[in-house]
Amino acid sequence: MATMDDIARELGITKGTVSKALSGAEDVSETTRKAVVEKAVELGYSRISRTQERPRLALFILNMSYDKPDDFGYDMVVGFRKMAEPAGYEVVIVPLTTQMQLETQYDEFMLRENFRGAFFLGMTLTDPWMKLFETCRTPTVLYDNHVPGNPNVAYVAADNTEGMCLAVAHLKSLGHKRIGYLSSALGSYVYRQRYAAFFQALRENGMDDRQTLAGSALQTPVCLQSHLPRLIKEGCTAIMCSHDLLASSLMLHCWELGLHVPQDISVVGYDDIPMASYTSPKLTTVRQNRTELGKSGFYALKSLMDGVPISTFLLHPQLIERDSTAPAPDKPAKLPELEDAAGSAAAAKP
Amino acid sequence: MATMDDIARELGITKGTVSKALSGAEDVSETTRKAVVEKAVELGYSRISRTQERPRLALFILNMSYDKPDDFGYDMVVGFRKMAEPAGYEVVIVPLTTQMQLETQYDEFMLRENFRGAFFLGMTLTDPWMKLFETCRTPTVLYDNHVPGNPNVAYVAADNTEGMCLAVAHLKSLGHKRIGYLSSALGSYVYRQRYAAFFQALRENGMDDRQTLAGSALQTPVCLQSHLPRLIKEGCTAIMCSHDLLASSLMLHCWELGLHVPQDISVVGYDDIPMASYTSPKLTTVRQNRTELGKSGFYALKSLMDGVPISTFLLHPQLIERDSTAPAPDKPAKLPELEDAAGSAAAAKP
Repeated sequence: MATMDDIARELGITKGTVSKALSGAEDVSETTRKAVVEKAVELGYSRISRTQERPRLALFILNMSYDKPDDFGYDMVVGFRKMAEPAGYEVVIVPLTTQMQLETQYDEFMLRENFRGAFFLGMTLTDPWMKLFETCRTPTVLYDNHVPGNPNVAYVAADNTEGMCLAVAHLKSLGHKRIGYLSSALGSYVYRQRYAAFFQALRENGMDDRQTLAGSALQTPVCLQSHLPRLIKEGCTAIMCSHDLLASSLMLHCWELGLHVPQDISVVGYDDIPMASYTSPKLTTVRQNRTELGKSGFYALKSLMDGVPISTFLLHPQLIERDSTAPAPDKPAKLPELEDAAGSAAAAKP
Repeated sequence: MATMDDIARELGITKGTVSKALSGAEDVSETTRKAVVEKAVELGYSRISRTQERPRLALFILNMSYDKPDDFGYDMVVGFRKMAEPAGYEVVIVPLTTQMQLETQYDEFMLRENFRGAFFLGMTLTDPWMKLFETCRTPTVLYDNHVPGNPNVAYVAADNTEGMCLAVAHLKSLGHKRIGYLSSALGSYVYRQRYAAFFQALRENGMDDRQTLAGSALQTPVCLQSHLPRLIKEGCTAIMCSHDLLASSLMLHCWELGLHVPQDISVVGYDDIPMASYTSPKLTTVRQNRTELGKSGFYALKSLMDGVPISTFLLHPQLIERDSTAPAPDKPAKLPELEDAAGSAAAAKP
């Protein structure tokens, strides 16, 4: 375990300067502070080595609920802790904010807080720390975010490409010829990847893959209202959704519009969150094994801490067939509004 | 642990029929035999449960040497055994032939030979068993071959996409503007993936990505003779190779042609096999950590055997900068033959 003396010797500065830099004193230049922090992380310096505490791991969470068993993040946190705590680590859950990311540099935060490594749930591509992961020195595992090229960073997920293939092949086997796609905003790695994977699956199955078959929006109501009528008009008999909550809202929206799921239109979700078994009808979806993802997160992090440069660790997803998918109807559904609109358009013709 | 009775009960047949089917007796129909084998594998039946032997794992190897420390496969085998044997497994190396694959069905072979799972090194896309991996029941890990969609099969490798990015970025930083690519035949998953990754890396670096910048052939001399003159003529100042042996032959061939590596042309290999440090000049290459790949192979296999559906397990590769790369020359090199050819072409003009 490296000491302040080691850092001072390596950088050719005094131990006092190292101490000041590490404690954030103001009479140390930004350049020196940065050099000290980088060297400290590189050498594996940790205050912990001089205490009896267990080594600490940070589990950063944002954009994801995890308190209750029904929350998406719950099983992942449980899986991670189940592996980490018997191995002698203390797991500290750190709700992450943009403000925190802007106020402190990642490696420095980890060093100051005595964290040996971190597992991140829920980062988006615009999060300030995402850029720092390209060069960070701290062992770091990202769920559903891929930052290639840094030997200290690993990517853990259920294979989204395979999941989309399973869903599209299932709908194809039910006779659906045109499938639409609805997605949350494409500001996160996972939604971008699923979007691309959906179209790849269409191509691999020899199906219509026009880009107009997809629509996305940050707000669910906006997504449904702007894109669903269009997809129905395009003749889609099935809609694939980027995640279960959107699929669940879609089914409610179909019900309001007088469309029957799955008779008129099939709906497939993604994730298999606990509520997917309690929608009406019960949702066909792609399952990610969240407990195993949490365990895999720890395995990848432990490997990075041990010097094994894990890059990517993916699990097979699983298609869960429930009641929201059925054989394609003989004819695509029609929305009353659309018929009205078509009617008035026809009436307006000269 | 399932017994023959369990298999018989599940299939509604007699234990005698199960026994005959498992021992390959001729008076059992092919359909019954297949059903028995599939059920046996599904239930985890193994003769071993009734003996004192250690559970057996198969390490299949083809198209790859592994006997001596200098062989590509050596460290992978060592890494795999280092993890598997202390965990109580017997590792049996099985040199695999096309004949063996044609003569016996994979799951059946594994059951007959009492293997619990397998790690495969060196399969090509045309190997007969590759098709069986799409539906096999036996826990199976493939090095550098990706068969998606089967929860019993995992893919282990060093990230080839990242490796190509490292190599191309290195050459770009040395001022090379046009890079050629030479590859072994594209009959294996890994060479196809590296080929695609090379062009992806060119695009990501904003470089010329014409398909004519690549050439491949099964035989190294054919590859060099058919493609090198063309790449030089295209103005390439650097050549990326699909693997180190090809890069090493390329450097010898350049020397024969009077081209100096790296002054006239830079050369980058892939794999960092032991001989890469002993070429003249020493080869710049992309390293795969073969010992860790072997260990990862066991980890993935153990996970599959424990019911964790690992899909993909990739390690970060590493660029090893040695002496075969240098800043790009002011002008692309010219081959004497090409100048002659150009000369005679000019002379032949009317």
